Amino acid sequence: MIETMADRFAFRLLATDGAARLGEITTPHGIIRTPAFMPVGTQGAMKGVHWRELREAGADIVLANTYHLMLRPGAERIASLGGLHAFINWPYPILTDSGGFQVMSLAELRKVEERGVIFRSRVDGAMIELTPERAIEVQRLLGADIAMQLDECVRLPAETPEIERAMRLSLRWAECCKRAFETDSASGRALFGIVQGGDDARLRGESARELVGMAFDGYAIGGLAVGEPQATMLAMIEQVAPHLPTERPRYLMGVGTPDDILAAVARGIDMFDCVLPTRNGRHGLAFTRFGPINLRNARHADDPRPLDPESRCAAARDAPRAYLHHLVKANEMLAAMLLSLNNLFYYQDLMQGARAAIAEGRFDEYWHLAREAWARGDVAAV
Amino acid sequence: MIETMADRFAFRLLATDGAARLGEITTPHGIIRTPAFMPVGTQGAMKGVHWRELREAGADIVLANTYHLMLRPGAERIASLGGLHAFINWPYPILTDSGGFQVMSLAELRKVEERGVIFRSRVDGAMIELTPERAIEVQRLLGADIAMQLDECVRLPAETPEIERAMRLSLRWAECCKRAFETDSASGRALFGIVQGGDDARLRGESARELVGMAFDGYAIGGLAVGEPQATMLAMIEQVAPHLPTERPRYLMGVGTPDDILAAVARGIDMFDCVLPTRNGRHGLAFTRFGPINLRNARHADDPRPLDPESRCAAARDAPRAYLHHLVKANEMLAAMLLSLNNLFYYQDLMQGARAAIAEGRFDEYWHLAREAWARGDVAAV
Repeated sequence: MIETMADRFAFRLLATDGAARLGEITTPHGIIRTPAFMPVGTQGAMKGVHWRELREAGADIVLANTYHLMLRPGAERIASLGGLHAFINWPYPILTDSGGFQVMSLAELRKVEERGVIFRSRVDGAMIELTPERAIEVQRLLGADIAMQLDECVRLPAETPEIERAMRLSLRWAECCKRAFETDSASGRALFGIVQGGDDARLRGESARELVGMAFDGYAIGGLAVGEPQATMLAMIEQVAPHLPTERPRYLMGVGTPDDILAAVARGIDMFDCVLPTRNGRHGLAFTRFGPINLRNARHADDPRPLDPESRCAAARDAPRAYLHHLVKANEMLAAMLLSLNNLFYYQDLMQGARAAIAEGRFDEYWHLAREAWARGDVAAV
Repeated sequence: MIETMADRFAFRLLATDGAARLGEITTPHGIIRTPAFMPVGTQGAMKGVHWRELREAGADIVLANTYHLMLRPGAERIASLGGLHAFINWPYPILTDSGGFQVMSLAELRKVEERGVIFRSRVDGAMIELTPERAIEVQRLLGADIAMQLDECVRLPAETPEIERAMRLSLRWAECCKRAFETDSASGRALFGIVQGGDDARLRGESARELVGMAFDGYAIGGLAVGEPQATMLAMIEQVAPHLPTERPRYLMGVGTPDDILAAVARGIDMFDCVLPTRNGRHGLAFTRFGPINLRNARHADDPRPLDPESRCAAARDAPRAYLHHLVKANEMLAAMLLSLNNLFYYQDLMQGARAAIAEGRFDEYWHLAREAWARGDVAAV
């Protein structure tokens, strides 16, 4: 039964509540309940969190960064070791990005050309060419359940001609990726196209329509959460969503805060990824039902209360805030470990709550109550 | 029944095998099986390891550093939060050192006087006086199950007069600590004296006899593993052991490698502490049945085998060596987390094996086989 399901990628839309969608993605490595939050295991590792803990937190899928892994330890090496799932010992679904976004944002000496992007490896200084075909090959070598097309993402604000140029290049790369994927990839794997177009409604619409014409397994919205206001991001989602087929999953890349996520779920987004839970955890910030808590703040130094006595997460239930404050101040690894874990549980519970609410037709109420609780804060604070 | 036991500190000698001893220490927070290895939670945290994982590894007791905790977050603060056990959420036995060793080795601007040691806090720059009485008070505030006397530890090699001066000062401080402890401490807590005397057999013997005359709850051997050869360390243990009462536990401070530990167990030592499992874990080194493995070495880059498929530790069983190598090279926190955990399991299993062997009268064979396996190395290596 499971093997039959695993033979092909599939998305089932189970319920809707307004524009919000409850669904289920089937992949060779298992089911992804949507709306889904995908934690980011940048270099094949979650920062400060064991893979087992991530599963306990409720994650169905993780995102791994092609850019980092192709530079070190190398896609061919991971393939010869049995693929990324075996390498990192995570037998559940994995989505890989194309590497493009991080080449653009991290690499020095990069040059974008029609055939791809050339950049210098930060590991050994070699010049590396990432073409659409190579992006697909690398993701196949890694064994991704869901691969992403190579695209060019423009930081906002930007001029319209620059946004349009990158959007059209991304469309041409989408075609190359689709072709390479169809000749190259194992059965059951999926390839998503990425809608670009910056903050320009017309370009966003055109990008979406063109991609849908190519018939991808799912559609991502890229190039958002790159510095624009939340209102712009939401407006762009509203521009794009009507163009996307209801029977395919929709993935908003790199988003975001709990509020960003619920606002996007309300507009029909099914998948999210973001480094916030672990990055903020390393910086002493805990996401809670009562809103974010900055454990670096001295007001926690004598507070015996845990972050949240009702959390599913032991780190949130058992550790006094005074202890977490101490660990943050003392720069102990355990601070990052406990807070990142708390945050990953929080994000997964946020999504589980959203899924339950959509199933029961009360997503708006769920979102409203969540925002109220964040705004009210921790009223029992000492 | 447990409450009755917890009322007082006790040591039971269960079996001997040559000079090796199998025993059991009862404390207010539970039983410590000896020979015991105590992992070090320096600032109230294990580096890279959750407390829950440490318990799973088999640790009965941990060591916490008074020096670090008195500077931050402060002993009075920890006391007001319910003591160290509640603060760090470790409800099992805790031994605290006196702070003396780290004042000597870490603090700048320190001055040793008859009444104590004065040093500058690395946290806020304040001048702090650590007297024998204050060392006992701080350890009482922390709520240690086992407290240590303040002593002065001399780095070896050193001149005899300097060793003798520090040894005699430590004896006078031992008396002050004993007096302060008897007037000050909660029932069931224990205080250990510390034998000093460097690498001088005569001074070691004198220090031990004088301390035993003061009737401590247990006896530590300090000032070893500070740069001298293993043979010197073992010779000093042999000098000291005959002076110590058989009905009290014996603790060799700051030791050591697996071989150091088994050699000391063979000479009648019951307790050990060392940062090696976590420090070496952070530096890419894994302790295994096959001897230490340096995961930084490029020969592991393509090795799909786990560290030890028969380990109780999931990190040792499940992670390919190639993955561990990658994590070490990529400087991922998960490298330190997995290798430290592997090492803590290894140390606890080493002690469990020693205890079982003593119980069965085959400790020499156990030690011999362990050394043989370390020397043989990982014969199946690719």
